[in-house]
Amino acid sequence: MILVTIDRKSEDTLHKQIAKQIESMIKNQALKDGDILPSTRALSVHLEVNRTTVCKAYEELWSLGYIESRPGSYSRIRNRPDITSSKNINETGINWDEKLSPSYKRMSEKMASGGIQYPQNCKIDFTTLSSDPAYWPVEEFRKSINRILQSDPETAMSYEDPKGNMEFRKELSKYLGRHQIYISEKNILVTNGSQDAIDLVLKALLHPGDTVVCSEPTYSYLPSLVACNGGTTAPIPLTDSGMNIHALEEILENNNCSLLYTMPSFQNPSGLSISQKNREKLLELCSLYNVPILEDGFLEELKYHGETILPIKSMDSSGIVIYVGTFSKILFPGLRTGWIAASPKLIDRLAEIRRVTRLSGNPLIQMALTDFLKQGKFEYFLKKVHTRYRERINAAMKAARRYLSLDYVRYTKPSGGYTFLVYWDNPPISEKQFLSELLSKGVAVSPGSLYFQDPSRNICVRISLSKTLPDEIEQGIKIISETIRENCI
Amino acid sequence: MILVTIDRKSEDTLHKQIAKQIESMIKNQALKDGDILPSTRALSVHLEVNRTTVCKAYEELWSLGYIESRPGSYSRIRNRPDITSSKNINETGINWDEKLSPSYKRMSEKMASGGIQYPQNCKIDFTTLSSDPAYWPVEEFRKSINRILQSDPETAMSYEDPKGNMEFRKELSKYLGRHQIYISEKNILVTNGSQDAIDLVLKALLHPGDTVVCSEPTYSYLPSLVACNGGTTAPIPLTDSGMNIHALEEILENNNCSLLYTMPSFQNPSGLSISQKNREKLLELCSLYNVPILEDGFLEELKYHGETILPIKSMDSSGIVIYVGTFSKILFPGLRTGWIAASPKLIDRLAEIRRVTRLSGNPLIQMALTDFLKQGKFEYFLKKVHTRYRERINAAMKAARRYLSLDYVRYTKPSGGYTFLVYWDNPPISEKQFLSELLSKGVAVSPGSLYFQDPSRNICVRISLSKTLPDEIEQGIKIISETIRENCI
Repeated sequence: MILVTIDRKSEDTLHKQIAKQIESMIKNQALKDGDILPSTRALSVHLEVNRTTVCKAYEELWSLGYIESRPGSYSRIRNRPDITSSKNINETGINWDEKLSPSYKRMSEKMASGGIQYPQNCKIDFTTLSSDPAYWPVEEFRKSINRILQSDPETAMSYEDPKGNMEFRKELSKYLGRHQIYISEKNILVTNGSQDAIDLVLKALLHPGDTVVCSEPTYSYLPSLVACNGGTTAPIPLTDSGMNIHALEEILENNNCSLLYTMPSFQNPSGLSISQKNREKLLELCSLYNVPILEDGFLEELKYHGETILPIKSMDSSGIVIYVGTFSKILFPGLRTGWIAASPKLIDRLAEIRRVTRLSGNPLIQMALTDFLKQGKFEYFLKKVHTRYRERINAAMKAARRYLSLDYVRYTKPSGGYTFLVYWDNPPISEKQFLSELLSKGVAVSPGSLYFQDPSRNICVRISLSKTLPDEIEQGIKIISETIRENCI
Repeated sequence: MILVTIDRKSEDTLHKQIAKQIESMIKNQALKDGDILPSTRALSVHLEVNRTTVCKAYEELWSLGYIESRPGSYSRIRNRPDITSSKNINETGINWDEKLSPSYKRMSEKMASGGIQYPQNCKIDFTTLSSDPAYWPVEEFRKSINRILQSDPETAMSYEDPKGNMEFRKELSKYLGRHQIYISEKNILVTNGSQDAIDLVLKALLHPGDTVVCSEPTYSYLPSLVACNGGTTAPIPLTDSGMNIHALEEILENNNCSLLYTMPSFQNPSGLSISQKNREKLLELCSLYNVPILEDGFLEELKYHGETILPIKSMDSSGIVIYVGTFSKILFPGLRTGWIAASPKLIDRLAEIRRVTRLSGNPLIQMALTDFLKQGKFEYFLKKVHTRYRERINAAMKAARRYLSLDYVRYTKPSGGYTFLVYWDNPPISEKQFLSELLSKGVAVSPGSLYFQDPSRNICVRISLSKTLPDEIEQGIKIISETIRENCI
């Protein structure tokens, strides 16, 4: 008879004790493939337990694959494949690179230039592009979350309509009125941030091989996101007042364009805003060529220099503009809550895609944001950060006038937001060398190669002020100036 | 001189007052295209305000597109396109159906059969498939959220590593040990729920036109999700013990298969579990044909009938199995937190796709879940719900033996989870008629056409017990039985 013992004081049930001991005998090779187990009757007599206890233990061993025949007849040990042991963590049984899809490969090619390691704890960090945690209204938002979890936890923790929480959509449509976009909740789809929004729109409207027109420079993830969805980007130079209209018309005329992508206010990376005239022209041309406009309003709220150019969407009477927005760059980036404002017909289609690919969003966060907005906390918060970010942009422009007024240096002058570009014409060193020299002096900037698709350019770096104070900004720009001048001697 | 008045007691700044009044004159057609505005000097004298105040007002009007020339020279009113007014909410300028991408169209075709309106407030709701809100540990989870927001709000509200929060990944890898999946955090990628996980895997591995092998019946969203990613599903009949192995081998031999999709434990919709032998055979065949297995463990935790069949992933020593899991069906569905456990090489690639298409997940929810798991709350909660759901499955099986033991009726017998299927062979009415008869008697069930791709079948309905108590279950099954028998007379 096999050596099984019963401990009636153990926390394990009797059948568990039997099963566990037999399992460990199999693992120790005390029981081997083909060995016959005692009958359930014999073992139950031997152990002085009920026969059904032994049956239950054998059943469990059977379902784990350790026993060959079903209980009733004699049971045999069977050769069960081993479960993963810790030594197998880095399995290499499959060549995953061979398995990767064409859409991954296309995406990956477009990402290559963007493979930069952002430094941790750099003295002056000009790379981070998200609102400054120092100003986050965490305590207020925590209260909103608690109010929701205490008043309506069932709605907050359930699946939701694929278009998003209804109250949140109503609040968003009211909220967009401040940018003179007058729509209802029927025009709104909630997304997991604005990148998710762009991905959804591309999934719905991008035809394989078609073109997405964008500016040069453009948002760094756009080319890989478009490639992943089967298309290519057609970049058009961005000037101080907007996209080159002639270049745009030529592309619209000669290409299959699925979309025009634009970030008209405080563009990432340049900080530039497209003029009202240029916005009207974009709208006119796209209407003429029947190409939808994807307007990315990611920094719409950060207007603090008096100029209040309105979104293109505010002029859109035919529904050709698809507007995407987010709270990530103003409030908390980790919220992952953005939205699409578009024609209800398109919103319905986008909701179907969201249902199939994402199932549902997170209603708790949306309900807490609704509470936060309704209590007027957002307005209050916005006023506070406007003052702070204005100080930073002013400090940056002052330092740029002082340190970057060099023949071979140019920079963009934003009227809001918190980024701008510094161009260095005909540099004697490479972008990589420049970046690592700056890093050695404690200054981190983002390389222009992330934002330009044409590689034959001069050096250009993006300065983001979202994590730096006025003093650091001055010091950082001074170091950039010194590094340029040292190399130009 | 135009009629502008200044109210020094108003809350609006002086330049805002001037700009607003001129804007409304333009909107009222009091000022028309080409009209000349007074010079800034003249207006400032007239209004007794500083000239820069008038300049600021004109600047704002220019940036809004109401003025033709820049301030300094005489300014003219220009013909600015109207902003959207509320009457334009349902714009129909674009025929969106023409614009929709092939991937949307493929997806939409596969969704057609699933277009069912779930009833609100049905007396006996057998359709809902998510954990019962009555048992949700909301208060405990609220405490976890508060602990995180009070101890580390900056991490909780920031962008995160595209693989997910590190502590959460460590906790998940420990947690998977309870299913004898022994891996480290390097094998884990966090996702927004398991549907998002499947979408990511398909994006990475599905080649256009290739096949995803699945069972028949299968998860209702799988065919549309696969179609959206450019492939098709190849269904294989599911029996009481698993997939038909001969049919599987034939498909693997004769098709380009990118993946095998399986939900081996308590499958949705059938509640069936694949036997250990069948699991081994799937693993063996897929290794032979070099086809990765996508194992959906969506109800892994709901094992309450003593049978503890382990995930296929636990036997996977070559890394061919990609395991996806979620907390949505056990804890709160609205959390949108799932994971992928796979070979680290593949995890790296999936993280790149997640970065490009989703940017980041929500760290707050992951950190709160980590806290919840670490405090042992999950174990405690699981024990409680096991008892409850076991009662329900037992009540359902008892009622089925009593009411559904008919010649022309069959049903599946799940050993865990909370769903099963009822088949009605050779019915004299259609699925639609059956469903609406049941609805009129207060019973809602899910139609089998959602889960079967072959339309020439008998009637089959899915019963989900996640929102019904034992008494309701008995009553509901009795009504189903009566409805079948009434139609068969």
